Amino acid sequence: MTPPLRPITQEIAVTFRYPVHFTRGLFRPENPLLAQTLARADEAGPKKVLAVVDEGVARHHPELTRHLSAYLAAHPGLELVAAPLVVPGGEAVKNSPETVHALQRAVHTHGIDRHSYLLAVGGGAVLDMAGYAAATAHRGVRLVRVPTTVLAQNDSAVGVKNGVNAFCKKNFLGTFAPPYAVLCDLDVLTTLEQRDWVGGLAEAVKVALLKDARFFDFLEAHAAALRDRDAEAMAWAIYRCAELHLEHIATAGDPFEFGSSRPLDFGHWAAHKLEAVTDYRLRHGEAVAIGIALDATYAHLSGRLPRGDWQRILALFDALGLATYTPELETGALLTGLEEFREHLGGRLTIMLLDSIGRGVEVHDMDHATIRRAAQLLGARAKGETWTQDATFAAAAR
Amino acid sequence: MTPPLRPITQEIAVTFRYPVHFTRGLFRPENPLLAQTLARADEAGPKKVLAVVDEGVARHHPELTRHLSAYLAAHPGLELVAAPLVVPGGEAVKNSPETVHALQRAVHTHGIDRHSYLLAVGGGAVLDMAGYAAATAHRGVRLVRVPTTVLAQNDSAVGVKNGVNAFCKKNFLGTFAPPYAVLCDLDVLTTLEQRDWVGGLAEAVKVALLKDARFFDFLEAHAAALRDRDAEAMAWAIYRCAELHLEHIATAGDPFEFGSSRPLDFGHWAAHKLEAVTDYRLRHGEAVAIGIALDATYAHLSGRLPRGDWQRILALFDALGLATYTPELETGALLTGLEEFREHLGGRLTIMLLDSIGRGVEVHDMDHATIRRAAQLLGARAKGETWTQDATFAAAAR
Ligand SMILES: NC(=O)c1ccc[n+]([C@@H]2O[C@H](COP(=O)([O-])OP(=O)(O)OC[C@H]3O[C@@H](n4cnc5c(N)ncnc54)[C@H](O)[C@@H]3O)[C@@H](O)[C@H]2O)c1
Ligand SMILES: NC(=O)c1ccc[n+]([C@@H]2O[C@H](COP(=O)([O-])OP(=O)(O)OC[C@H]3O[C@@H](n4cnc5c(N)ncnc54)[C@H](O)[C@@H]3O)[C@@H](O)[C@H]2O)c1
Ligand SMILES: [Zn+2]
Ligand SMILES: [Zn+2]
Repeated sequence: MTPPLRPITQEIAVTFRYPVHFTRGLFRPENPLLAQTLARADEAGPKKVLAVVDEGVARHHPELTRHLSAYLAAHPGLELVAAPLVVPGGEAVKNSPETVHALQRAVHTHGIDRHSYLLAVGGGAVLDMAGYAAATAHRGVRLVRVPTTVLAQNDSAVGVKNGVNAFCKKNFLGTFAPPYAVLCDLDVLTTLEQRDWVGGLAEAVKVALLKDARFFDFLEAHAAALRDRDAEAMAWAIYRCAELHLEHIATAGDPFEFGSSRPLDFGHWAAHKLEAVTDYRLRHGEAVAIGIALDATYAHLSGRLPRGDWQRILALFDALGLATYTPELETGALLTGLEEFREHLGGRLTIMLLDSIGRGVEVHDMDHATIRRAAQLLGARAKGETWTQDATFAAAAR
Repeated sequence: MTPPLRPITQEIAVTFRYPVHFTRGLFRPENPLLAQTLARADEAGPKKVLAVVDEGVARHHPELTRHLSAYLAAHPGLELVAAPLVVPGGEAVKNSPETVHALQRAVHTHGIDRHSYLLAVGGGAVLDMAGYAAATAHRGVRLVRVPTTVLAQNDSAVGVKNGVNAFCKKNFLGTFAPPYAVLCDLDVLTTLEQRDWVGGLAEAVKVALLKDARFFDFLEAHAAALRDRDAEAMAWAIYRCAELHLEHIATAGDPFEFGSSRPLDFGHWAAHKLEAVTDYRLRHGEAVAIGIALDATYAHLSGRLPRGDWQRILALFDALGLATYTPELETGALLTGLEEFREHLGGRLTIMLLDSIGRGVEVHDMDHATIRRAAQLLGARAKGETWTQDATFAAAAR
């Protein structure tokens, strides 16, 4: 008989590195950023590029795919393998396995290899879907993300996750796969619908609440400008929000989320559920604003968050033009979102709440009755019912 | 206008750690290994387990799924969520997207989360397929691999890759995703067909040739015992081969293969092509033996590998009962395997050859005429034509 064979402990360290750039006019011929990003002196041959463009972007920026093609044609070291593929924008594309398959097929057909690029231009939904296709074809081809919404630039596209929906579960399929580079073009945002313009700011409010009270002050001070489409205020808000997200991922010790907590997902247990139960009528950012309002109210009702902080949060959403209530908050289905959230992260339920503006705190259960009261309160406030009457309010909040 | 926003360089370090165990009678009630691996004192609640078993294993070990179920039932901290799913064994399962989908659906249905386990029992093909499903559901649930073939124990299951075939390309879809643990049960190997028993040794010969001349000596010295199913010799061969693979992945600096070279894929450009053109009539290990024979012959013909070393390699395959030739070696299609190999890795063609036994060397092109001559030579040798006649042979090898 063989003597016992010693177990082997395998330890593998992998370092991922990618740049996040902020620019304007990314595809203008005089802008060197894209070429600098894709050209690699240390790698032979022209670099192949497969481009995927969000239909909403293509429609609002009819010149964009032309400029993109011309830009790549003008650089001898780069080869666009086919006309940019235009794919549906918005959540619909994450509900469509065929699109993932079509991109994987295009990678195959055009001989895109692990050193070639998938250049994905679009909102968070298109980038999540294209990122999943890129991460799985050849076990990962290089993904260059060009986010075109506020939310994608300040949050989703700078991170390490991709995903599509399956079995009616949000992001059920996906991977952790850092991009090759992220190129944010601030000019492209001008055509966003108002709901998407302000929607992305919900993530900025979120990260400010968790990590940076001064950033919250900034958002408060510039709320009207932000809402009224001041490009400069928005650029700063996006930059700081992206920076805080990046910092968290790099330094919080669990970039691939092996643990049970997801500290950046404040307000998200309800948000994910609200997106699903409204059949994605609510966009992610809109749902996050309501989810934050709910959890902030809960934190206040359960004696954590001081009243003043709580009111500042709701007032900021008002000033930004972001709703803090939707009738679905008061349906029983909402509460199943807690278990779904737990299941998606794995392990023990871990919910981020607030002790004050700028200071998050994790809890491991939530009281259902208090959640219901928080929802009612937001409902009453939305209907203008008793909100301004402090006495009634205090009673409700007791 | 906004002042320029400084680019941010994101750097993320991720460490993966997993144990690789060698045992016997893994599912016997008195063997604590499985329970020790799955139970986690630091995590609440019973741990859910979804089990997937290779049909070939279930057929040859009819008691296995029963023992597995009984084992988990006997441990209060563990919960088998459903009867083990039996899936087809062999390459067919990697050609079947439905199986991946069925596993993802089972993860959904049974509420397997990122802290629950997918326990996959089978050959390399089943583990590659199940690993892909596990890596993508919830962006990765914990995968415990129980490899049941020589090849899976000494190579495929100890590494960090998974994958399925698509668009007629081997492993076109997959990810890099280290397992949670690898549990090798040496007892289960006894029922392997002879071709699978010796087939896995091709990977041992490969890694010995690249990294460890003394291991090559061991394989030579025990070739007859290995072929004739000596369990002890096989246990050592598997252990050392696994160890060399693990060492390489951990220390060679590119575990997720961002570069263009894949030093462990000696002989594999031809092997992958031979598997495909024979419609997977050749198993992976069988194809690797032929691929190594081809590239060793090529290395000799092109003046790298000394004659004595080259002959020892072919003689070892003979002694193990592994063929070094198949007629498909002499078809024109073989050469397209070079470009497909390059494309799958990405970047510049990089092929591992040999300078001597124990010392690999990378080259960036291969001469087609010399490949053809090498194939012919192996063909002549297989037919016993001129092999033993040194003069003729020398002429052919000129
Ligand atoms: N991967 C992550 O870490 C992460 C993080 C947060 C959110 N997300 C995901 O991001 C998605 C939401 O992304 P989103 O908020 O960017 O919305 P979205 O991608 O759903 O896009 C909303 C709409 O805007 C259109 N659009 C995009 N860019 C435009 C532009 N410049 N001008 C005009 N219209 C444009 C789209 O076509 C779409 O119709 C959700 O699926 C969410 O789950 C992912
Ligand atoms: N992921 C990686 O890094 C990696 C590395 C090398 C090979 N591979 C892949 O592994 C696959 C080959 O795996 P393999 O050589 O293990 O063969 P296999 O998985 O194709 O199995 C061969 C046959 O053996 C049967 N079988 C399995 N265990 C048995 C047992 N104990 N007794 C009796 N029959 C048994 C199976 O049902 C199947 O019919 C290929 O797809 C190859 O590409 C992957
Ligand atoms: Zn979000
Ligand atoms: Zn192999």
